[in-house]
Amino acid sequence: MSFFSVTHKNEGCAARTGVLQLPHGIVHTPVFMPVGTNATVKAVSKESLEEIGFEIILANTYHLFLRPGPDLIQEAGGLHGFSQWKRNFLTDSGGFQVFSLARLRKITAEGVTFQSHLDGSRQFFSPESVVQTQTKFNSDIQMQLDVCSGWGVDRKEAEQALKITTTWAERARNEWLIQKQNGYNGVLFPIVQGNFFEDLRKQSADFVVSLDTPGIAIGGLSVGEPPEKFAEFLQFTVQHLPFEKPKYVMGIGTPEYILEAVADGIDMFDCVLPTRNARNGSYFTHDGMLSIKQERFAHDFAPVDNECNCKVCRTYSRAYLRHLFKDQEILSAMLSSYHNLYFLHHMMEEVQLAITENNFEQYRKDFINRFETGNIR
Amino acid sequence: MSFFSVTHKNEGCAARTGVLQLPHGIVHTPVFMPVGTNATVKAVSKESLEEIGFEIILANTYHLFLRPGPDLIQEAGGLHGFSQWKRNFLTDSGGFQVFSLARLRKITAEGVTFQSHLDGSRQFFSPESVVQTQTKFNSDIQMQLDVCSGWGVDRKEAEQALKITTTWAERARNEWLIQKQNGYNGVLFPIVQGNFFEDLRKQSADFVVSLDTPGIAIGGLSVGEPPEKFAEFLQFTVQHLPFEKPKYVMGIGTPEYILEAVADGIDMFDCVLPTRNARNGSYFTHDGMLSIKQERFAHDFAPVDNECNCKVCRTYSRAYLRHLFKDQEILSAMLSSYHNLYFLHHMMEEVQLAITENNFEQYRKDFINRFETGNIR
Repeated sequence: MSFFSVTHKNEGCAARTGVLQLPHGIVHTPVFMPVGTNATVKAVSKESLEEIGFEIILANTYHLFLRPGPDLIQEAGGLHGFSQWKRNFLTDSGGFQVFSLARLRKITAEGVTFQSHLDGSRQFFSPESVVQTQTKFNSDIQMQLDVCSGWGVDRKEAEQALKITTTWAERARNEWLIQKQNGYNGVLFPIVQGNFFEDLRKQSADFVVSLDTPGIAIGGLSVGEPPEKFAEFLQFTVQHLPFEKPKYVMGIGTPEYILEAVADGIDMFDCVLPTRNARNGSYFTHDGMLSIKQERFAHDFAPVDNECNCKVCRTYSRAYLRHLFKDQEILSAMLSSYHNLYFLHHMMEEVQLAITENNFEQYRKDFINRFETGNIR
Repeated sequence: MSFFSVTHKNEGCAARTGVLQLPHGIVHTPVFMPVGTNATVKAVSKESLEEIGFEIILANTYHLFLRPGPDLIQEAGGLHGFSQWKRNFLTDSGGFQVFSLARLRKITAEGVTFQSHLDGSRQFFSPESVVQTQTKFNSDIQMQLDVCSGWGVDRKEAEQALKITTTWAERARNEWLIQKQNGYNGVLFPIVQGNFFEDLRKQSADFVVSLDTPGIAIGGLSVGEPPEKFAEFLQFTVQHLPFEKPKYVMGIGTPEYILEAVADGIDMFDCVLPTRNARNGSYFTHDGMLSIKQERFAHDFAPVDNECNCKVCRTYSRAYLRHLFKDQEILSAMLSSYHNLYFLHHMMEEVQLAITENNFEQYRKDFINRFETGNIR
């Protein structure tokens, strides 16, 4: 069976359903993947993740490399043995965190030297070392080390970042092929960069395609640009990528961005937003984001979202959830994180159904219209 | 059926098993009750509490009175409707927190005036108001307002505290009888005080017994005194209380203290310790307390306690739990709290079984011997 199969394409748009065959079970796409930075999705047990129906979660290479370290995780039987999450793991390369969290970064052609944000210790990542680390993690899908440039940088900086990303993509692919020969059965996704310059995006896409890896990631989007630029460059990038490969847009987690990406034929998404928002008392509802701390919910005994079938909405009132949030109870983070992940996962199930019925564009329009004009906020 | 029945008394000691018939189901004794200060046991879902097997939990009147307030909780259908924990609640009177958390306390014969530790607002508790508040909570077992004096106070202070506690006990009982006539079906426990003076303890016990309430609480123990003083005054107090009444020693939660109290014929216990310790990375094991942060557990892939059948011990390694604790992940508090509550609940089940087999003293000796000399610490 092939690594990825498109099971249905929506008539009239690029949205499609598919199935990924991964070492720890199949994954139905389009899929939202919760982020489990330290080999745990914050405030959510693995039983809850299974109960909601997730087939794959993320973990962060930067954090886990620093603590507890790849050797310990390998000794524990990889991420799956360590965390006991027995379904799939996707790991990022750590590059994004090196450039956002670590100190005293120095990039050379060879790799990147940096200081740990935890203890100031000097560390080094190369495209090869990062593949080796993720292989020790036994990641089901691993990412290449890349250099992500932000919104608003000049062409020269974007060119330099892309140049390094491109050579690192090839070196990562070569190292992955070696690990594969040694028995590792996860896959590698290289990353398309190129900032917001069409020719650089095309050049990056063409090169990544030429590497003929099992899947392709698109980076450098949702980095501060306006939503129309996100949509424009996502669409522009996708047209240079082959239909049959699974495509992953990194770091998006709002319904608007996810539904835009699905419309463009993207299959995979991840973001810390649903669980981070949850810990800040912000709940997804069909009528928009609900900030539970508001005074008007003090005596509101209705569920967060009447139409949500999650156990939080079937059990608890806004009044109780507000009380938990105001008292900074851990149960607040537990329940809100559960709800937000359930809400997004359920939306993805509806998206998959709509696509099989060639009804995705209508579903998207109705969902967004209600989400953006709801009276909840 | 009567409110409380002793189902078996251990031959040769005062330990006994029993059954409490409460508005929200029966409770098997001896019982440890987890503390859910803000109408949630910290980091533990109600599903987990049910799964472990708890039949009753505590909530704190002081905290819930200040936020969200008794009227809101009554509107929500009492503590059970508000929190959706549908088994029993015991609530304390709030007195202990007034004397430990609140500011500018002033005690008169009428009641106690204090400033909220949350917003500095001026508040007032009387024995009657506290019964009314707990009735709005629809507590299954409520406590009288009392004045708890600490270890080492002089006789005069102990006498004064007892004098107020005694008159408040009678006023609380009278107010409870009124609420009962109005349809409230929870019960009231008055509290024996008297500090560490035998004649005061006896005087208090005699008076409380004369009130003929469904059950009796013993307060003012485990307030800083050495363990032998705890045992001495607990034994002294119990001998003045009737065999057929359920007896509750407030604020104890270590195996040593619980097993001592069971040996003296005590039926009920509560303490924040198991969950507070858990959040600090301290796990109960048969071989003593295990501090998960220790370096020596970094590569230890064994469970916290090999003989514990809880889902944490059946699933996770010390290495992973240490990692979660070091990274301050919420899952650390979730798993450690679950384990510690399971451990204590399971110990109480073993205690009940040992009593029915007239084997309690041997069980206690074996448990404590191993717990205190184990090589885990």
